[in-house]
Amino acid sequence: MTATPTITENLRAFQGLKTDLFHKDFLLTWEHPEEEIRAIVTLADTLKQLHKAGHSFRSFDTGLAISIFRDNSTRTRFSFASAANAMGLGLSDLDEQKSQVAHGETVRETANMISFLTEVIGIRDDMFLGEGHTYMKEVGDALTDGTQRGVLHRRPSIVNLQCDIDHPTQSLADLAWLRQHFGSLENLKGKKIAMTWAYSPSYGKPLSVPQGIIGLMSRFGMDVRLAHPEGYGLISDVVDLAGKQAAKSGGKFTVTNSMEEAFAGADIVYPKSWAPYQVMERRTEMLKVSDKEGLRELEKECLANNAKHANWECTRRMMDLTADKKALYMHCLPADITDVSCKAGEVSAEVFEQYRIPTYQEAAYKPFIISALMFLTRLKDPGAKLEQIVNRAQALHL
Amino acid sequence: MTATPTITENLRAFQGLKTDLFHKDFLLTWEHPEEEIRAIVTLADTLKQLHKAGHSFRSFDTGLAISIFRDNSTRTRFSFASAANAMGLGLSDLDEQKSQVAHGETVRETANMISFLTEVIGIRDDMFLGEGHTYMKEVGDALTDGTQRGVLHRRPSIVNLQCDIDHPTQSLADLAWLRQHFGSLENLKGKKIAMTWAYSPSYGKPLSVPQGIIGLMSRFGMDVRLAHPEGYGLISDVVDLAGKQAAKSGGKFTVTNSMEEAFAGADIVYPKSWAPYQVMERRTEMLKVSDKEGLRELEKECLANNAKHANWECTRRMMDLTADKKALYMHCLPADITDVSCKAGEVSAEVFEQYRIPTYQEAAYKPFIISALMFLTRLKDPGAKLEQIVNRAQALHL
Amino acid sequence: MTATPTITENLRAFQGLKTDLFHKDFLLTWEHPEEEIRAIVTLADTLKQLHKAGHSFRSFDTGLAISIFRDNSTRTRFSFASAANAMGLGLSDLDEQKSQVAHGETVRETANMISFLTEVIGIRDDMFLGEGHTYMKEVGDALTDGTQRGVLHRRPSIVNLQCDIDHPTQSLADLAWLRQHFGSLENLKGKKIAMTWAYSPSYGKPLSVPQGIIGLMSRFGMDVRLAHPEGYGLISDVVDLAGKQAAKSGGKFTVTNSMEEAFAGADIVYPKSWAPYQVMERRTEMLKVSDKEGLRELEKECLANNAKHANWECTRRMMDLTADKKALYMHCLPADITDVSCKAGEVSAEVFEQYRIPTYQEAAYKPFIISALMFLTRLKDPGAKLEQIVNRAQALHL
Repeated sequence: MTATPTITENLRAFQGLKTDLFHKDFLLTWEHPEEEIRAIVTLADTLKQLHKAGHSFRSFDTGLAISIFRDNSTRTRFSFASAANAMGLGLSDLDEQKSQVAHGETVRETANMISFLTEVIGIRDDMFLGEGHTYMKEVGDALTDGTQRGVLHRRPSIVNLQCDIDHPTQSLADLAWLRQHFGSLENLKGKKIAMTWAYSPSYGKPLSVPQGIIGLMSRFGMDVRLAHPEGYGLISDVVDLAGKQAAKSGGKFTVTNSMEEAFAGADIVYPKSWAPYQVMERRTEMLKVSDKEGLRELEKECLANNAKHANWECTRRMMDLTADKKALYMHCLPADITDVSCKAGEVSAEVFEQYRIPTYQEAAYKPFIISALMFLTRLKDPGAKLEQIVNRAQALHL
Repeated sequence: MTATPTITENLRAFQGLKTDLFHKDFLLTWEHPEEEIRAIVTLADTLKQLHKAGHSFRSFDTGLAISIFRDNSTRTRFSFASAANAMGLGLSDLDEQKSQVAHGETVRETANMISFLTEVIGIRDDMFLGEGHTYMKEVGDALTDGTQRGVLHRRPSIVNLQCDIDHPTQSLADLAWLRQHFGSLENLKGKKIAMTWAYSPSYGKPLSVPQGIIGLMSRFGMDVRLAHPEGYGLISDVVDLAGKQAAKSGGKFTVTNSMEEAFAGADIVYPKSWAPYQVMERRTEMLKVSDKEGLRELEKECLANNAKHANWECTRRMMDLTADKKALYMHCLPADITDVSCKAGEVSAEVFEQYRIPTYQEAAYKPFIISALMFLTRLKDPGAKLEQIVNRAQALHL
Repeated sequence: MTATPTITENLRAFQGLKTDLFHKDFLLTWEHPEEEIRAIVTLADTLKQLHKAGHSFRSFDTGLAISIFRDNSTRTRFSFASAANAMGLGLSDLDEQKSQVAHGETVRETANMISFLTEVIGIRDDMFLGEGHTYMKEVGDALTDGTQRGVLHRRPSIVNLQCDIDHPTQSLADLAWLRQHFGSLENLKGKKIAMTWAYSPSYGKPLSVPQGIIGLMSRFGMDVRLAHPEGYGLISDVVDLAGKQAAKSGGKFTVTNSMEEAFAGADIVYPKSWAPYQVMERRTEMLKVSDKEGLRELEKECLANNAKHANWECTRRMMDLTADKKALYMHCLPADITDVSCKAGEVSAEVFEQYRIPTYQEAAYKPFIISALMFLTRLKDPGAKLEQIVNRAQALHL
C-alpha cells in the first residue's frame, strides 16, 4: 500500500477535474465521463479525510434528502442517512405503503409533490429486471418537467442507490477503496480483477453489483475478468460495454466459465452470487402476476441449478491461485460465509476472516461517495466550496 | 395574472398585520381574525419567494416537530417534514402502533411525555366525525395544563393537518395560490368560486376540504357556491357560518343541487368528492364497534348512491359553462381522473391535463403555509425575525 | 423543597467533578464511580435550566444518533430523539425487520456498517433475561475492534436505553428529580425510599427499573427498602450489590415481603409491578423456541399468582403509613391505575392523581439525562464546552 494523497493534494487534484453534475441525476456510471468519475472518488476521499480529522463538511443550512427503498437495506440506508446528515440535509423516507407512488399519472404527480423543498432523492429499486432504471428515469422526467414549468424552484437530483442495471454508489466506493489500497487510480492500470459468480444457497440476487463492477473497472486500464457458470450471464449490453471500455482504456476484458481461470494471477477477486439474467426475467414476469406456484417452481429449479456449482467458492485453495497467493478480496457485504451464515456459501470462513477488515474499509467509502454525489449535484461551484471547507478546517488545526 | 408583490413589499405588508398566535394552536381558520389569515398567506408567500431565491429562513437551532398521522398521507406528510426542516426543527413521527396515545388518562399523559423539547405537534385525524377536532383540543388542554403546572418549559403549538371539520393547511394554501393567481386578496372580491361535489368510485372521503373552502373563502368577499346532490350535505354549523361570513365580507354564499348552476359563470371551480355527512356519522358508529358487515352494506349502499350522480364530472362541457369558458380548476390532489386513475371520476382526463400544472402550483404553497404557521406560533416577534431574514438574504445578493 | 442551584452554581459544581466517559459506553450505573454519577445529574440539571431559559446547548454540527428499539416505547423513544436533536445529531432508527442485526458474525458486521459517521447508539433490549446487556457488550466490542483496526474514525458510544439488568436513563432521571425535589444529593442521606412490587393485571414486566433503582439509590446514603411478595425476587447479583453499596455509603438496604413494612415512615415510595426473576427465565426459554402453548400456560399461572397479591396497591391507606403521610410517589410511567387504565392495578386513582404532575416532572429529566450522557461520552472537554455554552447564553441575557 502506497502513501495516499493528503487533503490538500486531494483538493488540488479535485479542482483540476471538470464536472457537469449540477442539478443532474446520477444513475449509471458509464453515462459520465471518466474525468467526472475521478472527481467523485477524489472528492469522496477528501471528505473522508476531513471526517477522520474531525472536521465537518456540512454544506447546507436546510433542505430534504428523500429516500425511496423498494427493498430491504441496512448499509445503503445508513450510508444515505449519514451522507444526508453530513451535508446538512434532513432525511425523509418515502414509505410507499403509506403513499401513492405507482405508475403513470401518479409517478409524475408524486415526484413533484415530495420535491418542493427537496435537494436529493435516493432510490433503490433493484427487484424487477427492466424496471428500476426505467422508474428512476420517469421520476427524473417528472422533476425536469416540474422545474421547467415553474412548479419546483430547483430540480432535485436523483441518486441511484441500486437499480436493475447498476449499483453506482457501491462500484464507486469499491473504486475509491482500490485507489486507496493501490495508492492511485493510475496504479490500477494492468491490475487483474476477477469479478466472479460464487455459490449461494439463496437465489434471485440482483445483477447490479457485477454489472456495476465490470462497467466501471473496465475504464481504468484494468484486466477485468468476468467468470460465471454457463447460463449465469449478465445483461448483454453491459457486457458489450465493458469490452469496449476496456479496449479504449488500454485494459482487457474477458469472460470465462472457469473461476480458476479468472483467479489465476489476479490482484483482486470479487466472488459474489447472482441470479442468471434469464431467471430474473422469468421471475419478474411471475412477480408481476403474483404467480406463487411458478415462483416456487422457479426457486426449486434455480437452487438445484446453483447446487451444481457449489464448488464456486472462494477458498484458500482458490486464493492460492492469485498473484503471490494474496489477491485483495472484495465483497459488497453481507457475504454468504460457509459455516458462518450458511452451510456452504460464497467464501470460506478462513478467507473471509482474513479479509474481513478490508471489506469493512471498502464499505466505509460508501457514505462519502454518496456525500460526494450530493456535493457535486447540488453545489454550483464545488471546487470553491471544498476549498472553503478545507481552509476553515486548516485554520482550526488540521 | 397580475404582478405579485416582491419580498420587500410582502415584508412590509406582513409587518403591518397584527397576529396573536404565539404559543397557540391553529385548528380552524374561522377561529382566527381575517387580519391573521392575511398575515399567514403573506408570510407564506414571502417564505416561498425566499426559497425560490435560494435563501434559508431557518429560525431554530434545535427543537422537535412531531407529527401524528392517523391516516395515510403523502403530500401533507412531506409538506410538514419540509416545513419542519426549513424552520430548523427535527422531525419525529409518533407511530401510535408503537405507543399509547389513546383516550382519557393517556392522551393527557402522552401529550406531555412527547413535549419536553417540542415546538410543534402536527396532527391529522380525519376519519371519524366528531372526533378529530375533539382529540386535538384534548391534546391542547393537556399541553396547557402541563405548561401551567411547570412540567413543560414552553407550550408546544398544535397545527391541524386535517380533522373532521377543517383542513386549514389545505384551504390556506388554496387561498395563497388564489392570491398569487389573481394578484392580491383584494382582487378576490366578487370572484365566483364553485365548491362542488363530484363523482368518485370510492366512498368515505372526508368533508374537511369542502368545509375548509367554504369556511375560508366566504371571508374574502367572494361569491361562494356550494353544490352537491341531495343528501350529500356538509356539517350544518359550517354551512351556516359560511353564509354569515359571506354576508359580513360583502360576498355571497349559495347552496344548490346543480353542478351546472354552480359552474355557470364561475371564475374558479373546485369539484371534489366527499361522503354525505349522515353517512360519515353512521360509518363512525360502525367503525367504533368494528361492525364489518354493516360497513360492507354501507359501502355498497353508498357506491350505489354515488353512481346515481356519475354525471357530476368536471368535463369540457362543464368548463364551457364557466366565465370565458376558462375558470381556474382547483383540487387538493390526488384527483380521481376518468380513464386515468379510474374508469369514471371527478374530472375528465382532458380538463385535468389542462390544469395539471396549476394544481401542482396550488400544492406548492402547502409547505410554506405550514412554515408560516410554525413561524407565527413559535416566534415572539415574527415581524422582526422576518426582517432579519430578509436583510440577511438581501445582504447576500437577493 | 429547597432552592435548587443556579446555572452558574451547577456549572462550577460540574467542573469540579472528574469524568472519564469520552468515547465510552454507558450500560450500568454501578460500573461508574459516584463522582461520575454526580457529574451526570449536575450536567443534566444545567442543560434543563438552559432549555428552560430558552438557550440551545447544541454541541454538534452534524453526526448521527442511532436508536435500536427491540420493544415498543414512547417516552424513551422521544427522550432519545429529543436529546439527539438538542445536541445537534441526526436521528436514524435501525428497524431490525428491515436489516440483519442478529447474532455472531452479523452483530459484529452491522455494528460497524451503521457507525461510519455515528456518534451515539441507543439500545433498548429488555425482553430476554441474560440477553440485553450481553448484546450491548457484543456491539461495544465490535465498535472497539472496528476503531482499533482503522475502520471507524471514532468509536461511537452506546447508551443503554433499558436492558435486562439496568435502566440507567430512568434511574438517573429519577435521581436528578430527587436532587431537585430535596435540594441536593447530600440531602438524600438518610431518606427512606420504598421500591416495592405492586399488583398489575399484566405480567412479564421487566426487572430493570427496580434493579436500576436499588442499584443506584443505595449509593447515596439512603435507606433503601426493597419489598415484594415471596417468589418475586430480582437478580441476586444486583440485590447483593445494593447491600454492599448501601453499607459503603452509610445508608441501609433491606428486603422485605411486606409492602406495609417498606412504606412505614418512607420519604419516597416507588410501587411498580415486575415479573419474578424465575418466571422471566422460563419465559425467555419459551420465547427462544416459540413455545406458544408453554407461554399461554405460563401467563395463566403468573396472572393467577399475581392475583394473590392484588392487595399490593398504593392506596391512600398505604400512603398514610409514610412519613407525615405524604411520601413522594414515583413511577417510570405509564402506571396501571385502578379504575382508570385497568380494573385493579398498581396505584389508586386518587393517589395517582395527587402525584400525577410530580411523575411528569420526574419524566421531564430523561431527555436531559440522555443529553448529558451524549455530552460526556462525545466531547473531549465537557467542562470547557459547558462553560462556553453558559457564557454564550449569559451574553444573550440569561
